[in-house]
Amino acid sequence: MSYDLIIVGAGPAGLTAGLYAVRSGLKTAIVSKDIGGTANSILLLENWPGFNGNGTKLMKSFYDQLKEYKINFFMNDVEMVEKKENLFIVKTNKEELKSKALIIATGTERRKLNVKGEKELTGRGVSYCVTCDAFFFKGKDIAVIGGSNCAATSALALSDLAKKVFIIYRGEKLRCEDITSKRLENKNNVEVFYNSIPVEIKGKDNVEGIIVETNGKKKEIKLDGIFVEIGSTPLIKFLKDLNLKLDGEKYIIVDGNMKTNIKGLFAAGDITNHKLKQVVVASGHGAIAAKSAYEYISKKE
Amino acid sequence: MSYDLIIVGAGPAGLTAGLYAVRSGLKTAIVSKDIGGTANSILLLENWPGFNGNGTKLMKSFYDQLKEYKINFFMNDVEMVEKKENLFIVKTNKEELKSKALIIATGTERRKLNVKGEKELTGRGVSYCVTCDAFFFKGKDIAVIGGSNCAATSALALSDLAKKVFIIYRGEKLRCEDITSKRLENKNNVEVFYNSIPVEIKGKDNVEGIIVETNGKKKEIKLDGIFVEIGSTPLIKFLKDLNLKLDGEKYIIVDGNMKTNIKGLFAAGDITNHKLKQVVVASGHGAIAAKSAYEYISKKE
Repeated sequence: MSYDLIIVGAGPAGLTAGLYAVRSGLKTAIVSKDIGGTANSILLLENWPGFNGNGTKLMKSFYDQLKEYKINFFMNDVEMVEKKENLFIVKTNKEELKSKALIIATGTERRKLNVKGEKELTGRGVSYCVTCDAFFFKGKDIAVIGGSNCAATSALALSDLAKKVFIIYRGEKLRCEDITSKRLENKNNVEVFYNSIPVEIKGKDNVEGIIVETNGKKKEIKLDGIFVEIGSTPLIKFLKDLNLKLDGEKYIIVDGNMKTNIKGLFAAGDITNHKLKQVVVASGHGAIAAKSAYEYISKKE
Repeated sequence: MSYDLIIVGAGPAGLTAGLYAVRSGLKTAIVSKDIGGTANSILLLENWPGFNGNGTKLMKSFYDQLKEYKINFFMNDVEMVEKKENLFIVKTNKEELKSKALIIATGTERRKLNVKGEKELTGRGVSYCVTCDAFFFKGKDIAVIGGSNCAATSALALSDLAKKVFIIYRGEKLRCEDITSKRLENKNNVEVFYNSIPVEIKGKDNVEGIIVETNGKKKEIKLDGIFVEIGSTPLIKFLKDLNLKLDGEKYIIVDGNMKTNIKGLFAAGDITNHKLKQVVVASGHGAIAAKSAYEYISKKE
């Protein structure tokens, strides 16, 4: 099938780009392995303007609005993208689609700890998604690994549910919004281990503990669950046949109009080199990417 | 009073910047003559992701969310801004406020036709706000002046209410989203005058008609109301004592981080030189501006 525009990814950036694209009259397809992307894992979304709820609820509202329009959704994995004679060829695990313009909005995936026991105990106490798994740990002892805003808000949300929450962070100060940091300080079941890195996850059938190294000294903490929140890496594997310009951390370099170095190819959301990885920023940039794609296609015709 | 950050303007950009600023712990004030700005005049807001309703409803939800935080609102006109010894001094019609950083998000105001009868009949049939005044013209004959997306969606909304809607536009093709253009074509009470400019508004106590020049030929159309939708100009008068870099149309030039050429001064929303004037874009940029202001203040301390 051939389209004006294919959008890869259906998180905040991809869905907003879709909304703007169909409303401007472009024949549009969205290819994505899921709806909502990593935004689904936001347990407490307080900084999407005018909204209160979790990420999944917001993403559902984006999707419900968009599917009222004539737009094709393909819930497939994209395996490879090529550009041939001014057309983009998007190869999925099921079909091959073509388009005049392309918006990449695949976002990121969670970084792994790469320590002993992590792989073996994933789904048995080791989790990368607080939203999905928090309720399994009601009244239990858990750890959040990481010190970002994401890690801190996860820890905060978990502290209402779990018996005890340890935060294990390599840095000296949590890198979170001031309001989150203050709320964490007021919790009496939260304990932070600074300058600390996990070196091994213990457990036979399920997580039983973690070995943490603090300033060179090792210590075992008994635990029932571990949430790994140490950041993300951009999902760009399927783009390796294009000469796409990336920054040092492999995020796609875009300008203010969401243009990449390849004509007709735009990017939006967490996959770009924009520093502020937020739903409202990704959405705004999604709208801009769709506008730029529209202008690119209009000029060609 | 002295603040970390003052935000001038309380539309989508200003309110989102406020949300991000207070959540990052900045002592923040918002100074604005109203809440919602020009977004309030959007009668049919279909491209804020996940939302259905009008602009006023959305802006109320932004404000309701924000006022749960510790933030100071000053509902005043800003008359002048100065920068003295690394501090911004914001002079309003009531008080003088100071801050380390400043975000300008005052947006735009509606452009006038500057024709005979316009000023005299404003509020007596001549209107610049469809949301505010549409219902006065139920079952009447009205004209929308302009051909932008904004003008077209206004005409569409008005066509459900008025007896007849004329669109008077100097161009040859409406500059609106394809979906709006198609919907207008399907309306049998909408008539478009292309290549046409209004030269005089007629009426004694109230609007009675308009004289339109089409390809050099003048014609009078009998009317009860006129909505002027010919675009906007940036609200920057109060910034004239700063050496702020503006583009040819007097929009504030910003980079991807919403920085202007003046240290500590950021801008977001419709007042910037970003081309896509949309609520979701303004909000995204508001978040970025707040982040940049936070980083600027943190480095200074």
